[in-house]
Amino acid sequence: MTAVAQTGRVAPGKPIGVLCFGGDLPVELAARALQANQPVFMVGFRGFANPAIETYPHVWVKLGQIGRFFRVLRQNAIERIVIVGALTRPSVRDLSLDWLGLWDLPRIIRMLRAGGDDSTLRRVVGYIEDRGVSVLGVSDIAPELLAGEGQLGRVAVGAEQENVAVGLALLDALSPFDIGQACIVLDRRPVAVEGVEGTDAMIRRVAELRSNGRLRVKGSRGVMVKAAKRDQDLRVDLPTIGPRTIELAAEAKLAGVAVEAGKALIADRAETLKLADRLGLFVVGVRRV
Amino acid sequence: MTAVAQTGRVAPGKPIGVLCFGGDLPVELAARALQANQPVFMVGFRGFANPAIETYPHVWVKLGQIGRFFRVLRQNAIERIVIVGALTRPSVRDLSLDWLGLWDLPRIIRMLRAGGDDSTLRRVVGYIEDRGVSVLGVSDIAPELLAGEGQLGRVAVGAEQENVAVGLALLDALSPFDIGQACIVLDRRPVAVEGVEGTDAMIRRVAELRSNGRLRVKGSRGVMVKAAKRDQDLRVDLPTIGPRTIELAAEAKLAGVAVEAGKALIADRAETLKLADRLGLFVVGVRRV
Repeated sequence: MTAVAQTGRVAPGKPIGVLCFGGDLPVELAARALQANQPVFMVGFRGFANPAIETYPHVWVKLGQIGRFFRVLRQNAIERIVIVGALTRPSVRDLSLDWLGLWDLPRIIRMLRAGGDDSTLRRVVGYIEDRGVSVLGVSDIAPELLAGEGQLGRVAVGAEQENVAVGLALLDALSPFDIGQACIVLDRRPVAVEGVEGTDAMIRRVAELRSNGRLRVKGSRGVMVKAAKRDQDLRVDLPTIGPRTIELAAEAKLAGVAVEAGKALIADRAETLKLADRLGLFVVGVRRV
Repeated sequence: MTAVAQTGRVAPGKPIGVLCFGGDLPVELAARALQANQPVFMVGFRGFANPAIETYPHVWVKLGQIGRFFRVLRQNAIERIVIVGALTRPSVRDLSLDWLGLWDLPRIIRMLRAGGDDSTLRRVVGYIEDRGVSVLGVSDIAPELLAGEGQLGRVAVGAEQENVAVGLALLDALSPFDIGQACIVLDRRPVAVEGVEGTDAMIRRVAELRSNGRLRVKGSRGVMVKAAKRDQDLRVDLPTIGPRTIELAAEAKLAGVAVEAGKALIADRAETLKLADRLGLFVVGVRRV
Protein backbone atom coordinates (compact mmCIF):
# COMPACT_ATOMS: atom_id res chain seq x y z
CA MET A 1 0.00 0.00 0.00
CA THR A 2 1.42 3.39 -0.87
CA ALA A 3 0.98 6.52 1.14
CA VAL A 4 -2.27 8.19 0.16
CA ALA A 5 -3.03 11.69 1.29
CA GLN A 6 -6.34 11.07 3.10
CA THR A 7 -8.35 13.77 4.74
CA GLY A 8 -6.65 14.71 7.94
CA ARG A 9 -3.65 12.45 7.58
CA VAL A 10 -0.27 14.16 8.00
CA ALA A 11 2.33 13.65 5.29
CA PRO A 12 4.84 10.91 6.17
CA GLY A 13 8.09 12.18 7.60
CA LYS A 14 10.39 11.66 10.57
CA PRO A 15 9.27 8.95 12.97
CA ILE A 16 6.25 9.71 15.07
CA GLY A 17 6.55 8.84 18.72
CA VAL A 18 3.63 6.67 19.80
CA LEU A 19 3.16 7.07 23.55
CA CYS A 20 1.63 3.71 24.39
CA PHE A 21 -0.86 3.09 27.19
CA GLY A 22 -3.18 0.07 27.59
CA GLY A 23 -4.95 -2.06 24.98
CA ASP A 24 -4.43 -2.86 21.31
CA LEU A 25 -4.78 0.61 19.88
CA PRO A 26 -1.06 1.55 19.96
CA VAL A 27 -0.25 -1.51 17.85
CA GLU A 28 -3.22 -0.96 15.50
CA LEU A 29 -2.14 2.63 15.00
CA ALA A 30 1.49 1.65 14.35
CA ALA A 31 0.38 -0.86 11.70
CA ARG A 32 -1.73 1.78 9.94
CA ALA A 33 1.07 4.34 10.08
CA LEU A 34 3.55 1.94 8.50
CA GLN A 35 1.03 1.07 5.77
CA ALA A 36 1.00 4.80 5.02
CA ASN A 37 4.84 4.81 4.98
CA GLN A 38 5.02 6.73 8.22
CA PRO A 39 7.69 5.34 10.52
CA VAL A 40 6.88 5.07 14.22
CA PHE A 41 8.80 4.77 17.45
CA MET A 42 6.92 3.23 20.34
CA VAL A 43 7.35 4.66 23.84
CA GLY A 44 5.75 2.11 26.14
CA PHE A 45 4.70 3.14 29.62
CA ARG A 46 5.55 0.35 31.98
CA GLY A 47 2.53 -1.09 33.74
CA PHE A 48 0.19 0.31 31.10
CA ALA A 49 1.31 -0.69 27.59
CA ASN A 50 0.85 -4.08 25.97
CA PRO A 51 4.17 -5.97 25.39
CA ALA A 52 3.03 -6.42 21.76
CA ILE A 53 4.40 -2.93 21.06
CA GLU A 54 7.85 -4.56 21.02
CA THR A 55 7.10 -5.65 17.41
CA TYR A 56 8.08 -2.09 16.47
CA PRO A 57 11.11 0.06 17.32
CA HIS A 58 10.47 0.84 20.96
CA VAL A 59 11.66 1.83 24.38
CA TRP A 60 10.04 1.42 27.79
CA VAL A 61 9.77 4.30 30.23
CA LYS A 62 8.10 4.79 33.55
CA LEU A 63 5.62 7.52 34.29
CA GLY A 64 7.60 10.35 35.81
CA GLN A 65 10.84 9.63 33.97
CA ILE A 66 10.38 12.89 32.25
CA GLY A 67 14.00 13.67 31.56
CA ARG A 68 14.47 10.23 30.03
CA PHE A 69 11.29 10.63 28.01
CA PHE A 70 12.43 13.83 26.30
CA ARG A 71 15.95 12.41 25.83
CA VAL A 72 14.48 9.39 24.02
CA LEU A 73 12.51 11.68 21.72
CA ARG A 74 15.58 13.79 20.96
CA GLN A 75 17.85 10.79 20.31
CA ASN A 76 15.31 9.40 17.82
CA ALA A 77 14.68 12.72 16.06
CA ILE A 78 11.05 12.63 17.15
CA GLU A 79 9.30 15.97 16.87
CA ARG A 80 5.75 14.72 16.77
CA ILE A 81 4.00 12.34 19.11
CA VAL A 82 0.58 10.78 19.53
CA ILE A 83 -0.77 9.51 22.85
CA VAL A 84 -2.87 6.35 22.59
CA GLY A 85 -4.36 3.62 24.70
CA ALA A 86 -6.30 3.28 27.90
CA LEU A 87 -5.00 5.36 30.78
CA THR A 88 -6.44 5.16 34.23
CA ARG A 89 -5.70 8.44 35.91
CA PRO A 90 -2.36 8.00 37.67
CA SER A 91 -1.86 9.05 41.25
CA VAL A 92 1.23 10.84 42.46
CA ARG A 93 2.38 7.51 43.93
CA ASP A 94 2.48 5.89 40.47
CA LEU A 95 5.21 8.29 39.42
CA SER A 96 8.78 7.16 39.32
CA LEU A 97 10.51 10.51 39.13
CA ASP A 98 13.88 11.25 37.56
CA TRP A 99 15.73 14.59 37.84
CA LEU A 100 13.59 16.52 35.40
CA GLY A 101 10.54 14.93 36.98
CA LEU A 102 11.68 16.13 40.40
CA TRP A 103 12.53 19.57 39.04
CA ASP A 104 9.05 19.93 37.58
CA LEU A 105 7.31 18.16 40.43
CA PRO A 106 5.20 21.11 41.59
CA ARG A 107 3.93 21.63 38.06
CA ILE A 108 3.24 17.91 37.62
CA ILE A 109 1.32 17.70 40.87
CA ARG A 110 -0.77 20.67 39.81
CA MET A 111 -1.49 18.94 36.50
CA LEU A 112 -2.66 15.72 38.12
CA ARG A 113 -4.64 17.34 40.87
CA ALA A 114 -6.45 20.18 39.24
CA GLY A 115 -10.00 20.19 37.93
CA GLY A 116 -11.50 17.50 35.73
CA ASP A 117 -9.95 15.10 33.25
CA ASP A 118 -10.26 17.74 30.58
CA SER A 119 -8.03 20.31 32.11
CA THR A 120 -5.53 17.72 33.35
CA LEU A 121 -5.04 16.33 29.86
CA ARG A 122 -4.84 19.75 28.30
CA ARG A 123 -2.11 20.65 30.75
CA VAL A 124 -0.15 17.52 29.92
CA VAL A 125 -0.33 18.44 26.22
CA GLY A 126 0.74 22.00 27.03
CA TYR A 127 3.68 20.72 29.08
CA ILE A 128 4.88 18.56 26.18
CA GLU A 129 4.37 21.22 23.52
CA ASP A 130 6.21 23.80 25.64
CA ARG A 131 9.25 21.58 25.12
CA GLY A 132 8.99 21.79 21.32
CA VAL A 133 7.26 18.49 20.61
CA SER A 134 3.93 18.63 18.77
CA VAL A 135 1.10 16.41 19.89
CA LEU A 136 -0.97 14.84 17.11
CA GLY A 137 -4.25 12.94 17.27
CA VAL A 138 -5.23 9.53 15.92
CA SER A 139 -7.10 11.35 13.14
CA ASP A 140 -3.82 12.87 11.93
CA ILE A 141 -2.19 9.46 11.54
CA ALA A 142 -4.95 6.92 10.84
CA PRO A 143 -8.28 8.68 10.29
CA GLU A 144 -9.71 5.35 9.09
CA LEU A 145 -9.68 4.16 12.71
CA LEU A 146 -12.41 6.67 13.59
CA ALA A 147 -16.08 5.79 13.26
CA GLY A 148 -17.62 6.60 9.88
CA GLU A 149 -21.11 7.95 9.35
CA GLY A 150 -24.22 5.78 9.07
CA GLN A 151 -24.88 2.12 9.78
CA LEU A 152 -21.57 0.43 10.59
CA GLY A 153 -22.66 -3.16 11.22
CA ARG A 154 -25.39 -5.33 9.74
CA VAL A 155 -28.21 -4.26 12.03
CA ALA A 156 -30.20 -1.16 11.04
CA VAL A 157 -30.98 1.62 13.51
CA GLY A 158 -34.67 1.80 12.57
CA ALA A 159 -37.00 3.45 15.05
CA GLU A 160 -34.20 3.83 17.59
CA GLN A 161 -33.06 6.83 15.55
CA GLU A 162 -35.35 8.92 17.76
CA ASN A 163 -33.50 7.82 20.90
CA VAL A 164 -30.19 8.59 19.23
CA ALA A 165 -31.41 12.15 18.58
CA VAL A 166 -32.51 12.62 22.21
CA GLY A 167 -29.15 11.30 23.40
CA LEU A 168 -27.21 13.68 21.16
CA ALA A 169 -29.33 16.61 22.34
CA LEU A 170 -28.70 15.66 25.97
CA LEU A 171 -24.94 15.36 25.43
CA ASP A 172 -25.03 18.72 23.71
CA ALA A 173 -26.71 20.24 26.77
CA LEU A 174 -23.98 18.72 28.98
CA SER A 175 -21.18 19.86 26.70
CA PRO A 176 -20.28 23.01 28.68
CA PHE A 177 -19.59 20.85 31.76
CA ASP A 178 -16.46 18.79 32.38
CA ILE A 179 -18.27 15.47 32.44
CA GLY A 180 -18.24 12.20 30.48
CA GLN A 181 -20.02 12.35 27.17
CA ALA A 182 -22.24 9.31 27.12
CA CYS A 183 -25.82 8.51 28.04
CA ILE A 184 -28.45 5.86 27.55
CA VAL A 185 -31.86 6.74 26.13
CA LEU A 186 -34.83 4.39 26.11
CA ASP A 187 -38.27 5.27 24.76
CA ARG A 188 -37.07 8.87 24.28
CA ARG A 189 -36.20 9.14 27.96
CA PRO A 190 -32.63 9.42 29.21
CA VAL A 191 -32.21 6.67 31.81
CA ALA A 192 -28.50 7.05 32.60
CA VAL A 193 -25.91 9.77 32.26
CA GLU A 194 -22.20 9.08 32.55
CA GLY A 195 -20.24 10.69 35.35
CA VAL A 196 -16.83 9.79 36.77
CA GLU A 197 -17.80 6.10 36.83
CA GLY A 198 -17.17 5.79 33.07
CA THR A 199 -19.13 4.37 30.16
CA ASP A 200 -18.86 0.69 31.13
CA ALA A 201 -20.15 1.27 34.66
CA MET A 202 -23.00 3.39 33.31
CA ILE A 203 -24.10 0.59 30.96
CA ARG A 204 -23.80 -1.96 33.78
CA ARG A 205 -26.08 0.24 35.88
CA VAL A 206 -28.80 0.04 33.25
CA ALA A 207 -28.34 -3.75 32.99
CA GLU A 208 -28.93 -3.89 36.74
CA LEU A 209 -31.96 -1.56 36.65
CA ARG A 210 -33.52 -3.80 34.02
CA SER A 211 -32.76 -7.05 35.79
CA ASN A 212 -34.04 -5.83 39.17
CA GLY A 213 -37.22 -4.41 37.66
CA ARG A 214 -36.56 -0.71 38.44
CA LEU A 215 -36.64 -0.16 34.69
CA ARG A 216 -39.51 -2.19 33.28
CA VAL A 217 -39.38 -2.49 29.51
CA LYS A 218 -39.58 -5.52 27.31
CA GLY A 219 -37.26 -6.64 24.56
CA SER A 220 -34.11 -5.03 23.22
CA ARG A 221 -34.71 -1.32 23.40
CA GLY A 222 -32.69 1.82 23.93
CA VAL A 223 -29.36 3.14 22.77
CA MET A 224 -26.06 4.11 24.32
CA VAL A 225 -24.91 7.36 22.73
CA LYS A 226 -21.30 8.47 22.98
CA ALA A 227 -19.95 11.71 21.57
CA ALA A 228 -17.15 14.18 22.04
CA LYS A 229 -17.72 17.41 23.86
CA ARG A 230 -17.85 20.33 21.46
CA ASP A 231 -14.44 21.59 22.60
CA GLN A 232 -12.92 18.22 23.45
CA ASP A 233 -9.22 17.85 22.66
CA LEU A 234 -9.37 14.65 20.62
CA ARG A 235 -5.58 14.34 20.68
CA VAL A 236 -5.70 13.23 24.28
CA ASP A 237 -9.28 12.24 24.89
CA LEU A 238 -10.93 10.29 22.11
CA PRO A 239 -14.34 8.76 22.86
CA THR A 240 -13.85 5.03 22.40
CA ILE A 241 -16.01 1.94 22.15
CA GLY A 242 -14.90 -1.64 21.70
CA PRO A 243 -16.03 -5.26 22.06
CA ARG A 244 -16.62 -4.83 25.79
CA THR A 245 -18.99 -1.91 25.11
CA ILE A 246 -21.06 -4.14 22.84
CA GLU A 247 -21.11 -7.00 25.35
CA LEU A 248 -22.30 -4.69 28.11
CA ALA A 249 -24.90 -3.06 25.86
CA ALA A 250 -26.26 -6.53 25.09
CA GLU A 251 -26.40 -7.32 28.82
CA ALA A 252 -28.38 -4.11 29.34
CA LYS A 253 -30.70 -5.31 26.53
CA LEU A 254 -30.05 -2.20 24.49
CA ALA A 255 -30.87 -2.18 20.79
CA GLY A 256 -27.58 -0.60 19.84
CA VAL A 257 -24.81 1.92 20.20
CA ALA A 258 -24.32 5.30 18.53
CA VAL A 259 -21.00 7.14 18.32
CA GLU A 260 -20.07 10.48 16.90
CA ALA A 261 -18.78 9.98 13.37
CA GLY A 262 -15.22 11.21 12.84
CA LYS A 263 -14.76 11.89 16.55
CA ALA A 264 -14.91 8.48 18.15
CA LEU A 265 -12.73 5.43 17.92
CA ILE A 266 -13.91 1.88 17.48
CA ALA A 267 -11.18 -0.20 19.06
CA ASP A 268 -10.75 -3.65 17.51
CA ARG A 269 -13.20 -2.52 14.88
CA ALA A 270 -13.60 -5.86 13.06
CA GLU A 271 -14.21 -7.76 16.29
CA THR A 272 -16.49 -5.06 17.68
CA LEU A 273 -18.74 -5.03 14.62
CA LYS A 274 -18.77 -8.82 14.30
CA LEU A 275 -19.86 -9.10 17.91
CA ALA A 276 -22.56 -6.48 17.42
CA ASP A 277 -23.88 -8.36 14.37
CA ARG A 278 -23.92 -11.63 16.28
CA LEU A 279 -25.68 -10.14 19.29
CA GLY A 280 -28.15 -8.25 17.09
CA LEU A 281 -27.09 -4.74 18.09
CA PHE A 282 -26.78 -1.86 15.70
CA VAL A 283 -23.69 0.35 15.65
CA VAL A 284 -24.18 3.70 14.01
CA GLY A 285 -21.99 6.74 13.39
CA VAL A 286 -23.88 10.01 13.69
CA ARG A 287 -22.97 13.61 13.07
CA ARG A 288 -24.16 16.46 15.23
CA VAL A 289 -26.20 19.17 13.67
CA MET B 1 -52.66 27.51 66.97
CA THR B 2 -55.13 29.37 64.79
CA ALA B 3 -55.34 29.21 61.04
CA VAL B 4 -53.00 31.76 59.57
CA ALA B 5 -53.15 32.66 55.90
CA GLN B 6 -49.59 31.87 54.84
CA THR B 7 -48.25 32.33 51.37
CA GLY B 8 -49.63 29.61 49.19
CA ARG B 9 -51.80 27.92 51.80
CA VAL B 10 -55.41 27.33 50.74
CA ALA B 11 -58.14 28.60 53.05
CA PRO B 12 -59.47 25.85 55.33
CA GLY B 13 -62.67 24.24 54.07
CA LYS B 14 -64.16 20.83 53.41
CA PRO B 15 -61.89 17.90 54.25
CA ILE B 16 -58.92 17.40 51.99
CA GLY B 17 -58.32 13.84 50.89
CA VAL B 18 -54.75 12.83 51.62
CA LEU B 19 -53.78 9.99 49.27
CA CYS B 20 -51.17 8.25 51.36
CA PHE B 21 -48.17 6.37 49.99
CA GLY B 22 -44.98 5.37 51.90
CA GLY B 23 -43.12 7.15 54.69
CA ASP B 24 -44.00 9.70 57.37
CA LEU B 25 -44.99 12.58 55.12
CA PRO B 26 -48.74 11.80 54.97
CA VAL B 27 -48.94 11.95 58.77
CA GLU B 28 -46.73 15.07 58.98
CA LEU B 29 -48.93 16.78 56.44
CA ALA B 30 -52.13 15.79 58.24
CA ALA B 31 -50.79 17.21 61.51
CA ARG B 32 -49.91 20.52 59.83
CA ALA B 33 -53.29 20.72 58.11
CA LEU B 34 -55.15 20.21 61.38
CA GLN B 35 -52.99 22.87 63.05
CA ALA B 36 -54.23 25.20 60.32
CA ASN B 37 -57.84 24.09 61.02
CA GLN B 38 -58.02 22.17 57.78
CA PRO B 39 -59.73 18.80 58.26
CA VAL B 40 -58.24 15.81 56.43
CA PHE B 41 -59.39 12.39 55.36
CA MET B 42 -56.67 9.82 54.82
CA VAL B 43 -56.91 7.41 51.90
CA GLY B 44 -54.23 4.81 52.54
CA PHE B 45 -52.95 2.67 49.68
CA ARG B 46 -52.47 -0.83 50.99
CA GLY B 47 -48.92 -2.05 50.72
CA PHE B 48 -47.61 1.52 50.49
CA ALA B 49 -48.96 3.68 53.34
CA ASN B 50 -47.77 3.65 56.94
CA PRO B 51 -50.39 2.28 59.41
CA ALA B 52 -49.83 5.47 61.46
CA ILE B 53 -52.29 7.22 59.14
CA GLU B 54 -55.03 5.47 61.15
CA THR B 55 -54.61 8.22 63.79
CA TYR B 56 -56.79 10.34 61.49
CA PRO B 57 -60.14 9.66 59.79
CA HIS B 58 -59.16 7.17 57.14
CA VAL B 59 -59.97 4.39 54.75
CA TRP B 60 -57.76 1.81 53.05
CA VAL B 61 -57.96 1.14 49.32
CA LYS B 62 -55.94 -0.90 46.89
CA LEU B 63 -54.33 0.46 43.77
CA GLY B 64 -56.80 -0.12 40.97
CA GLN B 65 -59.94 0.12 43.13
CA ILE B 66 -60.79 3.19 41.18
CA GLY B 67 -64.56 3.00 41.53
CA ARG B 68 -64.20 2.57 45.30
CA PHE B 69 -61.71 5.42 45.45
CA PHE B 70 -64.02 7.97 43.83
CA ARG B 71 -66.98 6.66 45.92
CA VAL B 72 -64.99 7.25 49.11
CA LEU B 73 -64.22 10.82 48.02
CA ARG B 74 -67.88 11.50 47.21
CA GLN B 75 -69.18 9.98 50.46
CA ASN B 76 -66.83 12.21 52.45
CA ALA B 77 -67.56 15.38 50.46
CA ILE B 78 -63.94 15.52 49.32
CA GLU B 79 -63.38 17.79 46.34
CA ARG B 80 -59.68 18.39 46.82
CA ILE B 81 -56.93 15.86 47.30
CA VAL B 82 -53.19 15.83 47.78
CA ILE B 83 -50.97 12.87 46.87
CA VAL B 84 -48.09 12.31 49.29
CA GLY B 85 -45.49 9.75 50.22
CA ALA B 86 -43.02 7.51 48.49
CA LEU B 87 -44.37 5.64 45.48
CA THR B 88 -42.34 3.11 43.62
CA ARG B 89 -43.77 2.97 40.14
CA PRO B 90 -46.47 0.29 40.20
CA SER B 91 -46.60 -2.40 37.56
CA VAL B 92 -49.84 -3.52 35.98
CA ARG B 93 -49.64 -6.62 38.21
CA ASP B 94 -49.80 -4.47 41.37
CA LEU B 95 -53.28 -3.34 40.39
CA SER B 96 -56.30 -4.86 42.02
CA LEU B 97 -59.00 -3.71 39.63
CA ASP B 98 -62.65 -3.06 40.45
CA TRP B 99 -65.37 -2.36 37.88
CA LEU B 100 -64.39 1.21 37.10
CA GLY B 101 -60.79 0.09 37.07
CA LEU B 102 -61.64 -2.57 34.51
CA TRP B 103 -63.71 -0.13 32.48
CA ASP B 104 -60.82 2.30 32.29
CA LEU B 105 -58.15 -0.36 31.97
CA PRO B 106 -56.88 0.62 28.52
CA ARG B 107 -56.45 4.21 29.68
CA ILE B 108 -54.75 3.11 32.89
CA ILE B 109 -52.33 0.86 31.05
CA ARG B 110 -51.45 3.73 28.75
CA MET B 111 -50.83 5.93 31.80
CA LEU B 112 -48.48 3.46 33.45
CA ARG B 113 -46.64 2.48 30.32
CA ALA B 114 -46.08 5.71 28.50
CA GLY B 115 -42.94 7.83 28.53
CA GLY B 116 -41.11 8.91 31.65
CA ASP B 117 -42.23 9.46 35.22
CA ASP B 118 -43.20 12.98 34.34
CA SER B 119 -45.82 12.20 31.77
CA THR B 120 -47.19 9.23 33.74
CA LEU B 121 -47.80 11.37 36.80
CA ARG B 122 -49.30 14.16 34.77
CA ARG B 123 -51.72 11.71 33.23
CA VAL B 124 -52.74 10.39 36.63
CA VAL B 125 -53.50 13.97 37.73
CA GLY B 126 -55.44 14.58 34.53
CA TYR B 127 -57.46 11.40 35.07
CA ILE B 128 -58.42 12.49 38.59
CA GLU B 129 -59.21 16.09 37.63
CA ASP B 130 -61.35 14.91 34.71
CA ARG B 131 -63.62 13.44 37.38
CA GLY B 132 -64.10 16.80 39.10
CA VAL B 133 -61.59 16.42 41.94
CA SER B 134 -58.85 19.01 42.19
CA VAL B 135 -55.33 17.92 42.95
CA LEU B 136 -53.38 20.18 45.33
CA GLY B 137 -49.71 20.17 46.24
CA VAL B 138 -47.98 20.07 49.62
CA SER B 139 -47.26 23.77 49.19
CA ASP B 140 -51.01 24.51 49.14
CA ILE B 141 -51.56 22.80 52.49
CA ALA B 142 -48.33 23.05 54.46
CA PRO B 143 -45.84 25.31 52.67
CA GLU B 144 -43.71 25.26 55.83
CA LEU B 145 -42.73 21.67 54.98
CA LEU B 146 -40.80 22.91 51.93
CA ALA B 147 -37.15 23.93 52.19
CA GLY B 148 -36.57 27.60 52.96
CA GLU B 149 -33.80 29.71 51.49
CA GLY B 150 -30.27 29.91 52.90
CA GLN B 151 -28.40 27.89 55.49
CA LEU B 152 -30.84 25.44 57.09
CA GLY B 153 -28.63 23.61 59.58
CA ARG B 154 -25.69 24.72 61.70
CA VAL B 155 -22.96 24.14 59.13
CA ALA B 156 -22.23 26.96 56.68
CA VAL B 157 -21.88 26.37 52.93
CA GLY B 158 -18.66 28.38 52.63
CA ALA B 159 -16.53 27.74 49.56
CA GLU B 160 -18.83 24.93 48.41
CA GLN B 161 -21.16 27.65 47.12
CA GLU B 162 -19.26 27.42 43.85
CA ASN B 163 -20.10 23.72 43.47
CA VAL B 164 -23.74 24.47 44.27
CA ALA B 165 -23.79 26.98 41.40
CA VAL B 166 -22.27 24.47 38.95
CA GLY B 167 -24.81 21.87 40.04
CA LEU B 168 -27.74 24.22 39.53
CA ALA B 169 -26.44 25.19 36.09
CA LEU B 170 -26.11 21.53 35.14
CA LEU B 171 -29.63 20.70 36.32
CA ASP B 172 -30.87 23.68 34.36
CA ALA B 173 -29.24 22.29 31.22
CA LEU B 174 -30.93 18.93 31.85
CA SER B 175 -34.31 20.51 32.55
CA PRO B 176 -35.75 19.96 29.04
CA PHE B 177 -35.20 16.19 29.43
CA ASP B 178 -37.37 13.80 31.41
CA ILE B 179 -34.66 12.83 33.83
CA GLY B 180 -34.05 12.98 37.58
CA GLN B 181 -33.02 16.38 38.84
CA ALA B 182 -30.02 15.74 41.02
CA CYS B 183 -26.26 15.71 40.59
CA ILE B 184 -23.07 15.73 42.61
CA VAL B 185 -20.39 18.35 42.01
CA LEU B 186 -16.90 18.21 43.45
CA ASP B 187 -14.18 20.80 42.80
CA ARG B 188 -16.49 22.46 40.24
CA ARG B 189 -16.74 19.23 38.27
CA PRO B 190 -19.95 17.20 38.03
CA VAL B 191 -19.04 13.65 39.08
CA ALA B 192 -22.49 12.02 39.01
CA VAL B 193 -25.82 12.74 37.36
CA GLU B 194 -29.03 11.06 38.44
CA GLY B 195 -30.85 8.84 35.99
CA VAL B 196 -33.51 6.20 36.63
CA GLU B 197 -31.48 4.79 39.52
CA GLY B 198 -32.63 7.62 41.81
CA THR B 199 -30.88 10.02 44.15
CA ASP B 200 -29.85 7.48 46.79
CA ALA B 201 -28.18 5.16 44.28
CA MET B 202 -26.41 8.13 42.70
CA ILE B 203 -24.93 9.18 46.04
CA ARG B 204 -23.95 5.56 46.79
CA ARG B 205 -22.11 5.49 43.47
CA VAL B 206 -19.96 8.43 44.51
CA ALA B 207 -19.30 6.81 47.91
CA GLU B 208 -18.02 3.79 46.02
CA LEU B 209 -15.92 5.82 43.55
CA ARG B 210 -14.24 7.50 46.51
CA SER B 211 -13.64 4.32 48.47
CA ASN B 212 -12.23 2.41 45.47
CA GLY B 213 -9.94 5.29 44.51
CA ARG B 214 -11.54 6.10 41.13
CA LEU B 215 -12.30 9.51 42.56
CA ARG B 216 -9.28 10.67 44.48
CA VAL B 217 -9.95 13.65 46.70
CA LYS B 218 -9.24 14.21 50.34
CA GLY B 219 -11.56 15.31 53.10
CA SER B 220 -15.22 16.21 52.98
CA ARG B 221 -15.77 17.89 49.64
CA GLY B 222 -18.53 18.25 47.11
CA VAL B 223 -22.23 18.80 47.19
CA MET B 224 -25.36 16.92 46.15
CA VAL B 225 -27.69 19.37 44.45
CA LYS B 226 -31.38 18.56 44.03
CA ALA B 227 -33.87 20.78 42.27
CA ALA B 228 -37.18 20.66 40.45
CA LYS B 229 -37.31 20.75 36.69
CA ARG B 230 -38.48 24.14 35.47
CA ASP B 231 -41.86 22.71 34.44
CA GLN B 232 -42.11 20.00 37.10
CA ASP B 233 -45.61 19.38 38.47
CA LEU B 234 -44.83 19.70 42.16
CA ARG B 235 -48.28 18.36 43.06
CA VAL B 236 -47.19 14.86 42.14
CA ASP B 237 -43.43 14.99 42.01
CA LEU B 238 -41.79 16.94 44.79
CA PRO B 239 -37.99 16.67 45.07
CA THR B 240 -37.40 15.24 48.54
CA ILE B 241 -34.47 14.72 50.86
CA GLY B 242 -34.52 13.15 54.30
CA PRO B 243 -32.28 11.57 56.95
CA ARG B 244 -31.21 8.80 54.57
CA THR B 245 -30.00 11.40 52.05
CA ILE B 246 -27.78 12.94 54.73
CA GLU B 247 -26.42 9.56 55.84
CA LEU B 248 -25.52 8.65 52.26
CA ALA B 249 -23.99 12.07 51.59
CA ALA B 250 -21.80 11.56 54.67
CA GLU B 251 -20.76 8.12 53.40
CA ALA B 252 -19.79 9.74 50.08
CA LYS B 253 -17.75 12.26 52.12
CA LEU B 254 -19.65 15.18 50.67
CA ALA B 255 -19.55 18.53 52.41
CA GLY B 256 -23.29 19.03 52.14
CA VAL B 257 -26.58 19.01 50.33
CA ALA B 258 -28.37 21.80 48.44
CA VAL B 259 -32.06 21.77 47.58
CA GLU B 260 -34.20 24.19 45.68
CA ALA B 261 -35.91 26.54 48.14
CA GLY B 262 -39.69 26.44 48.00
CA LYS B 263 -39.66 23.48 45.61
CA ALA B 264 -38.20 20.65 47.64
CA LEU B 265 -39.35 18.83 50.69
CA ILE B 266 -37.24 17.98 53.70
CA ALA B 267 -38.90 14.86 55.10
CA ASP B 268 -38.52 14.49 58.88
CA ARG B 269 -37.04 17.96 58.86
CA ALA B 270 -35.96 18.12 62.52
CA GLU B 271 -34.25 14.74 62.35
CA THR B 272 -32.68 15.47 58.95
CA LEU B 273 -31.13 18.75 60.10
CA LYS B 274 -29.99 17.32 63.46
CA LEU B 275 -28.26 14.49 61.64
CA ALA B 276 -26.60 16.90 59.20
CA ASP B 277 -25.35 19.01 62.12
CA ARG B 278 -24.00 15.96 63.89
CA LEU B 279 -22.24 14.63 60.76
CA GLY B 280 -20.88 18.09 59.88
CA LEU B 281 -22.78 18.49 56.60
CA PHE B 282 -24.38 21.71 55.46
CA VAL B 283 -27.95 21.79 54.19
CA VAL B 284 -28.80 24.83 52.12
CA GLY B 285 -31.89 26.03 50.29
CA VAL B 286 -31.07 27.83 47.04
CA ARG B 287 -33.13 29.70 44.49
CA ARG B 288 -32.49 29.52 40.79
CA VAL B 289 -31.66 32.70 39.01
